[in-house]
Amino acid sequence: MKINYPTKKLYKKTVSTSNRGMNLEEDLNQSNDHYLINNTAIIYKKPVPIQIVKVDYPSRSAAVIKEAYFKVPSTTDYNGIYKGKYIDFEAKETKNKTSFPLNNIHKHQVEHLNNISKMGGIGFVIVRFTTLDLTFYLESDKLFEFYNRGDSGGRKSISLDEFKEYGHLIKNTYSPRIDYLKIVDLYIE
Amino acid sequence: MKINYPTKKLYKKTVSTSNRGMNLEEDLNQSNDHYLINNTAIIYKKPVPIQIVKVDYPSRSAAVIKEAYFKVPSTTDYNGIYKGKYIDFEAKETKNKTSFPLNNIHKHQVEHLNNISKMGGIGFVIVRFTTLDLTFYLESDKLFEFYNRGDSGGRKSISLDEFKEYGHLIKNTYSPRIDYLKIVDLYIE
Repeated sequence: MKINYPTKKLYKKTVSTSNRGMNLEEDLNQSNDHYLINNTAIIYKKPVPIQIVKVDYPSRSAAVIKEAYFKVPSTTDYNGIYKGKYIDFEAKETKNKTSFPLNNIHKHQVEHLNNISKMGGIGFVIVRFTTLDLTFYLESDKLFEFYNRGDSGGRKSISLDEFKEYGHLIKNTYSPRIDYLKIVDLYIE
Repeated sequence: MKINYPTKKLYKKTVSTSNRGMNLEEDLNQSNDHYLINNTAIIYKKPVPIQIVKVDYPSRSAAVIKEAYFKVPSTTDYNGIYKGKYIDFEAKETKNKTSFPLNNIHKHQVEHLNNISKMGGIGFVIVRFTTLDLTFYLESDKLFEFYNRGDSGGRKSISLDEFKEYGHLIKNTYSPRIDYLKIVDLYIE
């Protein structure tokens, strides 16, 4: 038993990640680094918003946060500049195989993206169906429509077919791993 | 003595803040709220970057961060969109009465602002001399020049006179308290 245990663990780990890359956040960080190094775009993930309650200052060492809480984000995770345009998006993963449940995105995030688009910025979501290893780009106007459908009694999710029809499939590539700016180009015209 | 004590405290407090408003961060948050509500611009302060080490999940209540550390920010504090343009800036206060010491800003933040400006965005710093209650806007190109002067053996600060010559004084107003977009307008032409 003792001999088998580590092997089993290793086996499980290999299987669970075999046909997938890294997770979406890591793929996006790699892609944004790629864009930054190549002077293509300057896009960063925002830090997680935290409510800090207690901080200790031990002598001769860095301040230690001893009590803090996660806050609901006011905006989206990513923003920056590309070809002079303001870029703003949220990225989400789902294990669901047929649709993306809209309770994964906060209402004020959808409204934020909608306002960005009204101001002349480029707003969108990147949604990955992890089980299918499919990653889609969906522009904020369409997201807003689907969200409103849910709010007015319709289905509270976006089906995979709707992503295929109204979104853009982003192929996995080597570097950048998720070349979403290629899709942004379509909207910059 | 017991009777005088609270009065003294009150007096001290009144004096120390009498001819100043709130601090710069609060003034900027109020101004950004004002811009947001009036559909003028969508500009947010980014959360403070934190390295989270330990999180507790007490039953039936929110996750509590029990150990975390402050990280050096990769970028600046504020960014967003105004008149279709990408806006990016850092805000700093100094108690100094004659100059702004450049060690208040990280080198990579200056380089970030310089890159933003090269990409067609609007980058700048807002510096407040708290003792004088003077708030200046300085565009990123000028900031970059002054920073390089310090790096190549020159003075490692920007004098008040240089702010008056190369920057723009932002008057305190009621709402927005710091109407910095008026200065941005000069650079959007």
